[in-house]
Amino acid sequence: MRVSSSHRGQVEPFHAMDVLAGANRLIAQGVDVISMAVGQPSDPAPQAVRRAAAEALERGRIGYTDALGLMRLRQTIAQHYHEHYGLDISPERIAVTTGSSAAFNLAFLAMFDVGDRVAIAAPGYPAYRNIMAALGIEVVEVELQGASFLGAEHLRAQHAKKPLKGVLFASPANPTGTVTPQAELTQLVHAARDLGIMVISDEIYHRLSYDVPDMTALAYGEDVTVINSFSKYYCMTGWRIGWMVLPQELVRPVERIAQSLYISAPELSQIAAIEAFSATQELEAVKARYAQNRQLLMQRLPELGFPLAAPMDGAFYAFCDVSRHTNDSMEFAGRMLAQAHVAATPGKDFDPLQGHRYIRFSYAGSNSDMVEALARLERWLKNHA
Amino acid sequence: MRVSSSHRGQVEPFHAMDVLAGANRLIAQGVDVISMAVGQPSDPAPQAVRRAAAEALERGRIGYTDALGLMRLRQTIAQHYHEHYGLDISPERIAVTTGSSAAFNLAFLAMFDVGDRVAIAAPGYPAYRNIMAALGIEVVEVELQGASFLGAEHLRAQHAKKPLKGVLFASPANPTGTVTPQAELTQLVHAARDLGIMVISDEIYHRLSYDVPDMTALAYGEDVTVINSFSKYYCMTGWRIGWMVLPQELVRPVERIAQSLYISAPELSQIAAIEAFSATQELEAVKARYAQNRQLLMQRLPELGFPLAAPMDGAFYAFCDVSRHTNDSMEFAGRMLAQAHVAATPGKDFDPLQGHRYIRFSYAGSNSDMVEALARLERWLKNHA
Repeated sequence: MRVSSSHRGQVEPFHAMDVLAGANRLIAQGVDVISMAVGQPSDPAPQAVRRAAAEALERGRIGYTDALGLMRLRQTIAQHYHEHYGLDISPERIAVTTGSSAAFNLAFLAMFDVGDRVAIAAPGYPAYRNIMAALGIEVVEVELQGASFLGAEHLRAQHAKKPLKGVLFASPANPTGTVTPQAELTQLVHAARDLGIMVISDEIYHRLSYDVPDMTALAYGEDVTVINSFSKYYCMTGWRIGWMVLPQELVRPVERIAQSLYISAPELSQIAAIEAFSATQELEAVKARYAQNRQLLMQRLPELGFPLAAPMDGAFYAFCDVSRHTNDSMEFAGRMLAQAHVAATPGKDFDPLQGHRYIRFSYAGSNSDMVEALARLERWLKNHA
Repeated sequence: MRVSSSHRGQVEPFHAMDVLAGANRLIAQGVDVISMAVGQPSDPAPQAVRRAAAEALERGRIGYTDALGLMRLRQTIAQHYHEHYGLDISPERIAVTTGSSAAFNLAFLAMFDVGDRVAIAAPGYPAYRNIMAALGIEVVEVELQGASFLGAEHLRAQHAKKPLKGVLFASPANPTGTVTPQAELTQLVHAARDLGIMVISDEIYHRLSYDVPDMTALAYGEDVTVINSFSKYYCMTGWRIGWMVLPQELVRPVERIAQSLYISAPELSQIAAIEAFSATQELEAVKARYAQNRQLLMQRLPELGFPLAAPMDGAFYAFCDVSRHTNDSMEFAGRMLAQAHVAATPGKDFDPLQGHRYIRFSYAGSNSDMVEALARLERWLKNHA
């Protein structure tokens, strides 16, 4: 029979993942590639996390859990909101998910129907756009054009053109690292509430802000959906474990969808993640290294002709303007990987319109890797680019 | 703001998961519940699998992999097709997924658009129906009505009413355990091919057939999609790790969607699963215990007034007609859990029309649990039901 892909199967690739696959092929050939492509800490999960996993492996069966996750983990996450943000959140409103990836998919399915319009910032995390496209949601790209973050005025302007059903934003943001200042975050959430637009706040880069304290959208009320994960600050990418905090009205819809789409998040990762909040000392040491890397890149990247496109307030990314070197950052990133053996992510992932001018470097690697990557880039730019 | 669920968020619950959550609440209160609700082996993953996981934990970082999975695991799965089925399958056509759950979601997204019609058997695995509903696919329920499996004639009849885009079937099947005989499987795949209907074969219960050898739909050509998992025979439910074998045309669409929707399957589970195929001795001992349980239930359930609704050829399920006891198997299962402390799954999960007459028992537990469950049921039926 003729096998053909659906129309919605024609989503954009997540180019960072393609770069990762390309880098992995080079590494398999013995090439010493420095990966700054994927937003992935080079440190392992904290010791207490790995110890808990090892003990669970010894004890025996790793099984399905309730679809919303182990109650002990949900309670531990609730406790984190108390300690870190001074907020009392009921564990019943917390859903443990298979990474933030599952949380986005669940939130989109539970909140939006085919054709609903949802605003996101461009540049922004590509999976937002790609998951929504696969689910038939109309992605409303808000081109920031010089602004550092999506604000209340952007929202009002888009909503006036044609009503929005939802808005999704991140602070610190990916790919820029920009933190939305508290006053502007307040205005944004209030504007959404006034206009009847449902809010999803992606807080995956919380605890990775270098100058200001974290501000969660949950502080504004129980009607926002917050998505977070153990992948970034907690160094647990490959464990595929995250969470969401839901308005009460969405708990049961998310549970029902999760039962069929995921059954449950990996139990071993759930058991291990319970220990993540107690590993602050270890994780702050990791963060201190990111801070060093950040200082280095903030200085050296512009010197190499890669001016920063936004302030590097948080996360572990530098989003650079490469228009001095190329009109096609995708081709440029491919050449950089092949010739300089430094992997970075072309801007097209983050911004379909302006991305050709940008490239994102992740600085979640070791300090020596950053130094070496900068040296390679300098040599390469002199000789090839 | 007013928070409301989307229309598609109103999918049916996976009742087995609700029963699991109910059972877990009772267990947390100290009640000794025997769970026959969820299709989950009571044995841990094989020793070699857990050892590989423990070693990976020692080594350090658990990270993202390529979206299609670690090449070594894909190669090992390809080798399994060679050894178990005598088929040469390119590892390039194999996608490692976060359980069969992710495989279904990916297959549906990559193959079908909103409004496409896809046939499944009723009774059948509820997640098929619920995921398709969430994705806007029109689920065409083929009521088997006495037939044991979905056959070529069913397919032709449904297609004649209104064209089908796809068909999805399982052998051994859930909830019945029925194996489609080879001649009928051949006719079904050939009929689909003649009619231009894309085929998805759910082979998650392979290696759990008690009388006949496994027959994979891949034997008929490279145009079928096969879904499988390490959850059942390999005792790795909570590890969330499975795979699909794809027609070449679907590999890249599935990879692109997986990059954004899943990033990758849990790396620890991928590393561990490589060892699963070498644990046959240990796993065959587990299967021998299922075979004992099966003999016991085949005899005792009908004696208790629970006649089997289908032959228990494979998997680890007994699908029973409970119409002698109730007209509402959901209420019946709730009472059975509360009073007899035996959890089983109401038929409504599997068949929206006829399910009220049926209940599914999973016999993947220990032999002593089965004996005790039967004793409890006998007492309970005498006193309460």
